[in-house]
Amino acid sequence: MPLPTRVKIVDVGPRDGLQNEKQPVPAAVKIELVHRLQDAGLKEIEVTSYVSPKWVPQMSDNAEVMAGIRRVAGVRYSVLTPNMQGFEAALASRPDEIVVFGAASEAFSQKNINCSIAESIERFAPVVAAARAQGIAVRGAMSCTVGCPYEGDIAPEKVGYLAGLMKGVGVQRVDVADTIGVGTPRRVQAAIEATLAHYALDDVSGHFHDTYGQALANTLAALELGVWNFQSSVAGLGGCPYAKGATGNVATEDLVFMLHGMGIDTGIDLDKLIDAGQYISGFLQRPSNSRVAKAVLAKRAG
Amino acid sequence: MPLPTRVKIVDVGPRDGLQNEKQPVPAAVKIELVHRLQDAGLKEIEVTSYVSPKWVPQMSDNAEVMAGIRRVAGVRYSVLTPNMQGFEAALASRPDEIVVFGAASEAFSQKNINCSIAESIERFAPVVAAARAQGIAVRGAMSCTVGCPYEGDIAPEKVGYLAGLMKGVGVQRVDVADTIGVGTPRRVQAAIEATLAHYALDDVSGHFHDTYGQALANTLAALELGVWNFQSSVAGLGGCPYAKGATGNVATEDLVFMLHGMGIDTGIDLDKLIDAGQYISGFLQRPSNSRVAKAVLAKRAG
Repeated sequence: MPLPTRVKIVDVGPRDGLQNEKQPVPAAVKIELVHRLQDAGLKEIEVTSYVSPKWVPQMSDNAEVMAGIRRVAGVRYSVLTPNMQGFEAALASRPDEIVVFGAASEAFSQKNINCSIAESIERFAPVVAAARAQGIAVRGAMSCTVGCPYEGDIAPEKVGYLAGLMKGVGVQRVDVADTIGVGTPRRVQAAIEATLAHYALDDVSGHFHDTYGQALANTLAALELGVWNFQSSVAGLGGCPYAKGATGNVATEDLVFMLHGMGIDTGIDLDKLIDAGQYISGFLQRPSNSRVAKAVLAKRAG
Repeated sequence: MPLPTRVKIVDVGPRDGLQNEKQPVPAAVKIELVHRLQDAGLKEIEVTSYVSPKWVPQMSDNAEVMAGIRRVAGVRYSVLTPNMQGFEAALASRPDEIVVFGAASEAFSQKNINCSIAESIERFAPVVAAARAQGIAVRGAMSCTVGCPYEGDIAPEKVGYLAGLMKGVGVQRVDVADTIGVGTPRRVQAAIEATLAHYALDDVSGHFHDTYGQALANTLAALELGVWNFQSSVAGLGGCPYAKGATGNVATEDLVFMLHGMGIDTGIDLDKLIDAGQYISGFLQRPSNSRVAKAVLAKRAG
């Protein structure tokens, strides 16, 4: 199969990234980060989540952030909505897309949201229906599609099962996420292939963590299956909640460098993206997790 | 083409890695590192170089290191010999293989060794002949095969030209090195393909730097061409001389993690390899550059 000629990236930094940073980030900084990402050419940005501030205090400014963003035509702003209460709260902010989630691991589902995989999707069904009735798109984040911190290896059949449940309740597109970053190219391809039994190629995205340094190799493996939607986090924001001090989300800068080097169009200006990453890394007062940013900044410093 | 079922790795950490570390490392520590690498299952180790101590003081203990190693049958110990004087000095240490080098970039060749590519290979010709007359294998390290810090992009034709010169003087196998780590999968494949016009698949190895995070994606691209020999550096020793603070050699740990995850045999015990990396990182008093090592150690720490 010829490789895709263009790729669309969802930058999940403002939500998935900052949610996993310990340090609180003011709404104004989040808004500025979103602005810098869209100025760099990102066409999809996961902005915030509408989840109880008791569980995720980092996202309690969700309405303020959504209200503060200068929206650009052609950019899709998505928010995570874990339940109907969250969805109703999110509605006032007019997201273009909501994100629901499920795990391909029963143990992870039980530990994370205290119910089975099937129960979790049943609970999301009314949220999905309500969103679609309002003309809001729905994406499903499928976690632990290769490995689970509790169960270990996850069989592709489990991924297919989850994708089938997502499809059944009306989720329009799904992310195949390697949440703990243990995936390697062939195993990631197997998870994607299991998903493709339920979703069209255009509706499947790859979300690979770089905890073991495998994210770009896995991206190449996904590209070779024709996948052209990916998720990443500017500056590799977020770290890994399952291994403190280790890397989590692959850095958008590193992903873009590879794609552009392969002649694949992303619409993103890498220099502006690096500057966006430096902006938030500067706020957090720590080095970027992006190898590209580190190399480019080292070169700039001479 | 089916992927290789096994891969052989040359760990270049003791030479290429430590040569680029600022901190002096005593011979005893280098010897212990070599021992730990072979105990972890490495079958090829680049131990030291026989180069003027005026230029590379870090390797002035070459004879002491080579004499101190407890050699294991089936392990190949290689040394870098930049000229006949170096080769004659190396002879007493009975290396299994010598390494000569050349750049695919004229500007790099001029700046690095003050002569053209063709002149550099002519100068190596007597070294190669002398080694082969002694029954010592000869490997050719081809640098800047994708990009050059002075010239920028390097055309595959330049790589083919260098490989042809290497072949012409009797170099038995060659490394396709992305010295500044700017390579991406298709460009790396083009450099390898240009090399394959002169060398058999079994005699071509990939040597990718992780400066821009691309090394494992490039490794996957090379595997897809059938390449099954690779070079890497335990703990990612060495850094990048062209971008201070950035990553250089890909970490052997990260490479092995990917290969094992793909069911490709390396003969290496990853846990022992991580311990070898921790040994030298501990001596250097800095964190490993291996993402796998960081993730595994973070998990061990709970």
